[in-house]
Amino acid sequence: MARVSQEHLDARRRQILDGAARCFARNGFHATSMQDVLAEVGLSAGAVYRYFRSKDELIAAIASGVFTSIRGAFEEASRATPPPTPDVLLGAVLRLFLEERIEGADPQAFARLIVQVWTETLRNEELADTLGEGYHGMREAWTGLVVAYRESGILAADVPPEHVARTLIAAAQGFIAQQALFGGVTAEVLEDGLRGIMSMSVPPSPPEGTGSIE
Amino acid sequence: MARVSQEHLDARRRQILDGAARCFARNGFHATSMQDVLAEVGLSAGAVYRYFRSKDELIAAIASGVFTSIRGAFEEASRATPPPTPDVLLGAVLRLFLEERIEGADPQAFARLIVQVWTETLRNEELADTLGEGYHGMREAWTGLVVAYRESGILAADVPPEHVARTLIAAAQGFIAQQALFGGVTAEVLEDGLRGIMSMSVPPSPPEGTGSIE
Repeated sequence: MARVSQEHLDARRRQILDGAARCFARNGFHATSMQDVLAEVGLSAGAVYRYFRSKDELIAAIASGVFTSIRGAFEEASRATPPPTPDVLLGAVLRLFLEERIEGADPQAFARLIVQVWTETLRNEELADTLGEGYHGMREAWTGLVVAYRESGILAADVPPEHVARTLIAAAQGFIAQQALFGGVTAEVLEDGLRGIMSMSVPPSPPEGTGSIE
Repeated sequence: MARVSQEHLDARRRQILDGAARCFARNGFHATSMQDVLAEVGLSAGAVYRYFRSKDELIAAIASGVFTSIRGAFEEASRATPPPTPDVLLGAVLRLFLEERIEGADPQAFARLIVQVWTETLRNEELADTLGEGYHGMREAWTGLVVAYRESGILAADVPPEHVARTLIAAAQGFIAQQALFGGVTAEVLEDGLRGIMSMSVPPSPPEGTGSIE
């Protein structure tokens, strides 16, 4: 029996993941069976089970690939010194994200997959842990950047840097949801949007003792 | 046979929707059957089917209730003249949203339900239409506010108002995702975060070939 090369194994693995991702993006995790995946990639059960023994293993591998790719985009974009302002940095990350394509699927498919992963984590502890770790890492990285913005005088308000970090991450997550649900998201929308918000004047804090309006 | 009052019918409808929402938040739409809902609310099939004939009708009714409640929160918060800045306005909407409770469920349940609705719309055209209309309405309302911010001199950057509107909506959507996935979201995080971003200096546009900066 001929030995197969590592390249061949990797390509086959990629082929199965892309096929599964197309099925998931089209019909959702729950309505997709392993049989659907086999039919989509045109391989025998034996050939596929060698790589992935269950639908859950496929979902976990796809989710982990998604986080690696988002994290990589962020690290590539934040490498500049001094770090780019958030409109530039988050715009670059979103641009790389929107360029991610599932072989043979439409441009919304990748974002749809992420929204499905969000729902799946509500009932899958392993996935929830993976997602939680990724989120924790992004929070720490962005908080460090926000501290740098303040130290360099770019950010003036005296607010907890982690709150700014979480708001920037929320904006990126929201655009993933918009792309999945409605399509038509471009990095320019986020870049313009953040520049617009950055150009707004901060209202004075309410005087002490007047209480907040609830 | 005694006639039942409208209040009784409304209360019964509410009871069924809350029970279904608890089931959905706990196990997801797909893993929940109408039998699970019947057991949860402690009513007979006949009593429930009088209000909702299928799981899809329950999901649609819950989704529509969610949008109505978010829209109401936004309208209540934007009623002030001049409109509050986005940190105050979006903070008020998020605060009202976070106070929404599914009777007998944990504080994350409502946000979890929304993320599930997002996933469900990927395969349910009717839900997708409902969500699309809601999003369109929010975009228009926020775009109008951004125009007002610019006219009153609060927003300086020359960017399309709709892009700012979509970015603010994205931030709110992202915090719904964070609350569903990780919990611990408070309106203060968003308020502080937006104030921080608003206090950042906008970098000059990169010079064109001519070197002129507008």
